[in-house]
Amino acid sequence: MSDQDKKPPTKFGVVLFPGFQALDVFGPLDALNNMSRTRPLEFVILAATLDPVSTKVDNPGDNPGQIGQSVVPTHTFDTCPEDLEVLLVPGGFGARDPATTAPIVEFLKRIFPKLRHLLTVCTGSAIVAQSGLLDGRRATSNKRRWEWAASQGPAVHWVREARWVVDGNIWTSSGVSAGIDLIFAFIADQYGEETAKQLADIAEYVRNPDSSVDSFA
Amino acid sequence: MSDQDKKPPTKFGVVLFPGFQALDVFGPLDALNNMSRTRPLEFVILAATLDPVSTKVDNPGDNPGQIGQSVVPTHTFDTCPEDLEVLLVPGGFGARDPATTAPIVEFLKRIFPKLRHLLTVCTGSAIVAQSGLLDGRRATSNKRRWEWAASQGPAVHWVREARWVVDGNIWTSSGVSAGIDLIFAFIADQYGEETAKQLADIAEYVRNPDSSVDSFA
Repeated sequence: MSDQDKKPPTKFGVVLFPGFQALDVFGPLDALNNMSRTRPLEFVILAATLDPVSTKVDNPGDNPGQIGQSVVPTHTFDTCPEDLEVLLVPGGFGARDPATTAPIVEFLKRIFPKLRHLLTVCTGSAIVAQSGLLDGRRATSNKRRWEWAASQGPAVHWVREARWVVDGNIWTSSGVSAGIDLIFAFIADQYGEETAKQLADIAEYVRNPDSSVDSFA
Repeated sequence: MSDQDKKPPTKFGVVLFPGFQALDVFGPLDALNNMSRTRPLEFVILAATLDPVSTKVDNPGDNPGQIGQSVVPTHTFDTCPEDLEVLLVPGGFGARDPATTAPIVEFLKRIFPKLRHLLTVCTGSAIVAQSGLLDGRRATSNKRRWEWAASQGPAVHWVREARWVVDGNIWTSSGVSAGIDLIFAFIADQYGEETAKQLADIAEYVRNPDSSVDSFA
């Protein structure tokens, strides 16, 4: 049975790590939260441990005045439900720390074959690229960290000028707010354009509807 | 000394309550988080208790399949630092529960005279309206909950067609994603347009730059 023959997904999850970018996560999740009021969903928040995860990196170094917020995980990478269907991987400053991304890369290698869709925002695609899962696929990433992100996957067909890119079951978006356009495109694809339009209207969000238009490239 | 003579604010806070709207909070905070990497800030997350606060309402009722995420407060309303300068009040489904908003209304009455600026997103303006602080001022709110929001402050000069409204030191925005435009407008006003532009570029966010243009009104 192809994915198109299946019902739209209902089991979502997100990966968190110290130094994740808040809007990478909560842009897409706000739309999913709203959708779940009329279409029941399941949702897991995955991290290395069950301790709250901050948008601040563990060692702020030159940024002692950096502020952040902490979100509570529901599962660790080891206890992730095996029937997860859609996984969102955000970016952020923490994505540049190999010690932070190593357990995520291992988790992605293990879980990806079971997923129906993998979505990334910003430098989340660099983490996925490290796992090798994007090799031979088209993908995009944050424009401010483009050279670094692209260097994480030399065998990836990086598309610089794109709000988001879809290749098979991997959806990658450009930086930060582009994740909002990505989730509405994903919702339109899976649940129909009318559902996406309703949810964007609820959020009073002016969509960037063309994936190839990118004023930040 | 007028506010214009003072240095730009550095002490920010946000009010959380069960059933807050995720993007109301993390749209603005993402920009502040980014700004704090180059301009040191202080930030408090305020709630009735120090327990993590979910975007889900406490009693989902007809929405058992509703999903949400929980954020960790740093202070209660009672322990809020007295030198707080800027407070953000989000909206969300929880804003419609008087038991949820009652302690926030009391807190707002107490803290507002000490604040330099009060910012609201979505139905956050309805909570502030309940406190009487918007009486005689111009303000806007969420368009899907307009009649309810407006009814919370009969003495408020509600402006329906607006992405955001500034009246004195109270900045109110329309629904959900409008808070992102509000924060960039606030940053432009307080720290300069160049700072706002840089932060919007980092977030790859296409601003809605005119506060009077509102396609959702």
